[in-house]
Amino acid sequence: MISPLLTDLYQFTMAYGYWKLGMHDQEATFHLLYRKNPFRGNYALSCGLGSIVDFLNNWRFQPDDIAYLATLKNAHDEPLFPKDFLDYLQSLRFNCDIDAMPEGTIMFPHEPMLRIQGPLLQCQLLESPLLNMMNFQSLVATKASRVCRAAQGDSVIEFGMRRAQGPDGALSASRAAYIGGCDATSNTLAGKLYDIPVRGTHAHSWVTAFASELEAFEAYAGVLPHNVILLVDTYNTVKGVKNAIKIGKKLREHGADLLGIRLDSGNMAQLSINARALLDEAGFTNTAILASNTLDEYVITDLKKRGAKISAWGVGTNLVTAFDQPALDGVYKLSALQDRGGKWIYKLKLSEEEVKVSNPGRHQVRRFFSAGKYVADVIYDLDIGISDTPEMLVLNADMQNVRLDDVDAFVDLLQPIFRRGKLVQQPVSIHELRKNAMQASNEFYQMHGEHRYSMGLEKKLYDLKLEMIKGLKG
Amino acid sequence: MISPLLTDLYQFTMAYGYWKLGMHDQEATFHLLYRKNPFRGNYALSCGLGSIVDFLNNWRFQPDDIAYLATLKNAHDEPLFPKDFLDYLQSLRFNCDIDAMPEGTIMFPHEPMLRIQGPLLQCQLLESPLLNMMNFQSLVATKASRVCRAAQGDSVIEFGMRRAQGPDGALSASRAAYIGGCDATSNTLAGKLYDIPVRGTHAHSWVTAFASELEAFEAYAGVLPHNVILLVDTYNTVKGVKNAIKIGKKLREHGADLLGIRLDSGNMAQLSINARALLDEAGFTNTAILASNTLDEYVITDLKKRGAKISAWGVGTNLVTAFDQPALDGVYKLSALQDRGGKWIYKLKLSEEEVKVSNPGRHQVRRFFSAGKYVADVIYDLDIGISDTPEMLVLNADMQNVRLDDVDAFVDLLQPIFRRGKLVQQPVSIHELRKNAMQASNEFYQMHGEHRYSMGLEKKLYDLKLEMIKGLKG
Repeated sequence: MISPLLTDLYQFTMAYGYWKLGMHDQEATFHLLYRKNPFRGNYALSCGLGSIVDFLNNWRFQPDDIAYLATLKNAHDEPLFPKDFLDYLQSLRFNCDIDAMPEGTIMFPHEPMLRIQGPLLQCQLLESPLLNMMNFQSLVATKASRVCRAAQGDSVIEFGMRRAQGPDGALSASRAAYIGGCDATSNTLAGKLYDIPVRGTHAHSWVTAFASELEAFEAYAGVLPHNVILLVDTYNTVKGVKNAIKIGKKLREHGADLLGIRLDSGNMAQLSINARALLDEAGFTNTAILASNTLDEYVITDLKKRGAKISAWGVGTNLVTAFDQPALDGVYKLSALQDRGGKWIYKLKLSEEEVKVSNPGRHQVRRFFSAGKYVADVIYDLDIGISDTPEMLVLNADMQNVRLDDVDAFVDLLQPIFRRGKLVQQPVSIHELRKNAMQASNEFYQMHGEHRYSMGLEKKLYDLKLEMIKGLKG
Repeated sequence: MISPLLTDLYQFTMAYGYWKLGMHDQEATFHLLYRKNPFRGNYALSCGLGSIVDFLNNWRFQPDDIAYLATLKNAHDEPLFPKDFLDYLQSLRFNCDIDAMPEGTIMFPHEPMLRIQGPLLQCQLLESPLLNMMNFQSLVATKASRVCRAAQGDSVIEFGMRRAQGPDGALSASRAAYIGGCDATSNTLAGKLYDIPVRGTHAHSWVTAFASELEAFEAYAGVLPHNVILLVDTYNTVKGVKNAIKIGKKLREHGADLLGIRLDSGNMAQLSINARALLDEAGFTNTAILASNTLDEYVITDLKKRGAKISAWGVGTNLVTAFDQPALDGVYKLSALQDRGGKWIYKLKLSEEEVKVSNPGRHQVRRFFSAGKYVADVIYDLDIGISDTPEMLVLNADMQNVRLDDVDAFVDLLQPIFRRGKLVQQPVSIHELRKNAMQASNEFYQMHGEHRYSMGLEKKLYDLKLEMIKGLKG
């Protein structure tokens, strides 16, 4: 349950301004989009909508929120907000429309992952929390899909809590990592809150708490015989593997088995090859080798190339913080505002950087297929519309013109989630979301590999944008 | 209020093991420490203890937590934990001792920022959440202290929520950034929860919501005349500054003033120089120029060198995610365990990497002063003790021996926070913590600049460690 105070203060000062000027209920359209693919990749996975739905279903100012806002002062040491505005906030109920890409959709720069339409004041207050949730979870889901692809079907478990960015940096990351393709998390609370499978056995401290490694292993196997994955590097990895095998033999005498060993340091390629040989030789061919030492997609790919015999991967810090790029560059832009007569006025923000000039209008994203493969996305305006085989301007491929002559199908990616504040989307389980996301990223990779995907603005929308830029610069 | 389920599952499997084996109440000592200074710097600032105190004051398993744990299964699809263990967890109350460096203490690799002593089972369950909170907040406080030093006394405001790592990634970061030296945050909820000053005026969307920039500025100034900082780059920065000056003149006619302008894109050095000239020429010499475009300590230093006329800095993503190193490498190690006779058995974990071999014992950190300047830190064992001018082994300077012959004072850094679960520390306001942290980092920088600081293990403790390593390897 997150307070609606989770937003930037300037959203409140603007909200007050809109309210004071009688603009607060003017119908507005904002888009939430990102500008550059993370991790030097060629796609991102949308994620975070589930958390946004929970947030919006409980979006209501409580008396102590209002009491806090009443304490804020301006530069003259007077109250920043008058009481009648605060009364208005307290009475406010969320009643916007939201359309969004389902979680786990493959998406590209400039495509709205979320369109919000409703009273200007509400749309404005929601900017910061919606960005916060979509930016981070989309980032981690994308990272997870890359890590899982590198693991080539091996099990990947998210182990990141201890170095994640705060309790929720951990929880949000566990959710997004699971949707992105991880099999489980070590985070018990995430397991409870999001229905994610949880995994884990023991740490170095278990081993050091006993007089010897063998004694520690024996104790663990005695207590939890059907949950035995032994961490073998506390003192010496090869000796650790041999000790684990001794325990494995005892477990088998009692109808149990050595499920796995875990490597957490050293030359993981060589150690895993040695461990595999020792395990196989002793008849433990099904015992998994789990690795967990500063892993990410690059390290996993490298270990695979070096012939590592690792069958499961515990990925922590680099996944949950998206270490090599710890933020997605998502933005939230006003693109249309109704005048008092109910006519949509399109909006655009200029910038000295071309990539930062926003797109005017009210958008939908159409994904075109050709022989079962999707070949291009087109952002179009709801009022201008789009022809079946539109001329398209490709934004991410140096603005070359592309015609879509041989497309045979399409889908529109933004789906209705809220209508006037009411949730209209059927709930989807996190397991379904994960299945969809994994399928989407696998399919995308098979279709397009590392190649740049074609997407752009529908021609009439693009022309309108150019005209507006000219008008504003002139 | 964070659930004690916020921990890794393996803490529960180990806890069950300790309980089953009757080891759960054996007195244990763990240290929480980091291994490498972040951001290629020469120190870190400790932060996060306030959040840990809140967490531990409410550390109690609720019936729904227990119900969740009861659903977990082992590989044989039997309950992972028996009911009597879960009953034990439900009855559990936090009753450990915690000693910690006060928030805002300058600290160095291998020094315990936190020592926890108490029943083995409890210490184990607390590993993951304590790491989570200390790692992230210490990282961000350190980053903030670097950013504020680069700003050379200018105001620094934390603007990071929208790209922070989840809602708490934002909240924890706002808290730590303030303690590290920022003046305020844009995060309204952080302002409420932590008593941090909040700041903000308007976004690009305010400007685009009106027919022209001038109209937007005029509307804002009319509604909030004593809170006017105008964002001038929506269409063209120089024109924006001129429009802001027009508004400034009107404000002065009504006894108000133009507090500032904000630059958010383009060549900030040149634009700020031009803006300053225009403002000064028009008599707005006190109007601040706030900058806010992907800033960090490196960009601020560069802008200062290039003569930028910026007087306040809004720092977002790079601060709150600690973009260039988004995780601190903190660990939590068992270093001593009482046997059943009450005798402390020292513990040590080996590693192929020297830096990862843990230190045995129960530690305090002594900081030695010479003529008012602190010159070295020594980690010593509570039972072995330390002489007034100890031989010392410097861990972070290639293991050279250093003698401390001319020290004239010392302080011990770890202070009692909890005794048998009861908070014994007087509460300190966040403003006091911030003052202390800023003073500490300024003093440290004046004393030591970018030089490596001397710290190490007290000689007898070091010898003991070598002996233990020999024993374990032998």
